[in-house]
Amino acid sequence: MENAQPQHTNRHYEEDLRSLRAGLLKMGGLVERQIAEAIESLVSRDSDHARAVIKNDEEVNRMDVSNDEQCIRLLALHQPTASDLRFITTGLKITTDLERIGDNAVNICERALELNEVPQLKPYVDLPRMAEVAQSMVKDSIDAFMRNDVELSRQVIERDDEVDALNYQIYRELLSYMAEDPHTIGAATRLLFISKYLERIADHSTNIAEMVVFMVNGKVVRHMDKKKQ
Amino acid sequence: MENAQPQHTNRHYEEDLRSLRAGLLKMGGLVERQIAEAIESLVSRDSDHARAVIKNDEEVNRMDVSNDEQCIRLLALHQPTASDLRFITTGLKITTDLERIGDNAVNICERALELNEVPQLKPYVDLPRMAEVAQSMVKDSIDAFMRNDVELSRQVIERDDEVDALNYQIYRELLSYMAEDPHTIGAATRLLFISKYLERIADHSTNIAEMVVFMVNGKVVRHMDKKKQ
Repeated sequence: MENAQPQHTNRHYEEDLRSLRAGLLKMGGLVERQIAEAIESLVSRDSDHARAVIKNDEEVNRMDVSNDEQCIRLLALHQPTASDLRFITTGLKITTDLERIGDNAVNICERALELNEVPQLKPYVDLPRMAEVAQSMVKDSIDAFMRNDVELSRQVIERDDEVDALNYQIYRELLSYMAEDPHTIGAATRLLFISKYLERIADHSTNIAEMVVFMVNGKVVRHMDKKKQ
Repeated sequence: MENAQPQHTNRHYEEDLRSLRAGLLKMGGLVERQIAEAIESLVSRDSDHARAVIKNDEEVNRMDVSNDEQCIRLLALHQPTASDLRFITTGLKITTDLERIGDNAVNICERALELNEVPQLKPYVDLPRMAEVAQSMVKDSIDAFMRNDVELSRQVIERDDEVDALNYQIYRELLSYMAEDPHTIGAATRLLFISKYLERIADHSTNIAEMVVFMVNGKVVRHMDKKKQ
């Protein structure tokens, strides 16, 4: 077990790598839940729930710092090369995207708290649908990262169009609400922002998926000139 | 000059580091200009100008990829440690923030193109003011990174409140426009989005500044629980 230094080093290296993978997976799972719960707190108009989600962001932030530290530790102690180096540098970026997805879930809750002060504009149908797609994109982009899965990454990137279409549809619908009854403007603009936050979450997942493709075959699918609204 | 391998390696190392610094500085300068020109195209209602800014984002994207590659190259070839390692891993993250700031400048131009199709709602005063502050935050956050300047980073982080206040003020004002005259809703929601894009740009600069503080003294000022609207 302890016979040779490289062996010893390698064992620690593998452990550190596993720990980074576990950390990123755990963080991915948490931000997925944060999205789902943020939307749940919106739909059920449950302010306590919204506040709990906001509070829970502290855990997301702790994970961001610890994943970052784990990446830097791996680079410092083990000086990895080739595919491991790509994995770790991609991990450094992905943890930032996950943290910002968490911020967007917080933003949804902040708007939900404001919306709970006024009558509900309409039953929410498209926003939960949009949240579901965005959440699946977060999950699949992290899975693609863990498995070096270019095909799954491409599916995530394609799904972004669905979210953009839903975002536009919601925008048009809210615009007509506001035009018909100016009293709805306060609530409608908040729902507009929530739609934007979900679109942002989908963008972050798309960014992760693009980075995975880059990591795996060195091909830049980032910057394919996709328009974002 | 070529007498010893380590010397040779060191010289290349210093060159590679300098080249990374130059690349990030250049990219920072370009995205600053992109913000300024995006707002100029909005204020002057110049669609050709807006399209030129959108086109120019390709250059931002190229720089993103080349800075990324330079960071990975440095890690792979020179296996840096300590403060250089922190600098390079922070550089990896910063180039992503700069790229997304560039995306927000593109988004401003996309909304400007739509706004040019309808009569101007009002003279733009607060948005250019907000853009100016956001632009100064981009500049100072990159300068802080280059000079390890914690004090300048803190100033950037504080300035984020000014942008948030302007964003809120613009929101209230546009809300009252829409309430008074529903015909303004189309234009007003686009201006609302532009205000959000500028707020996003300020957020990215704040993120950069927070990472600089972390890089310099290992202290996490990220996640100080600052609320973002």
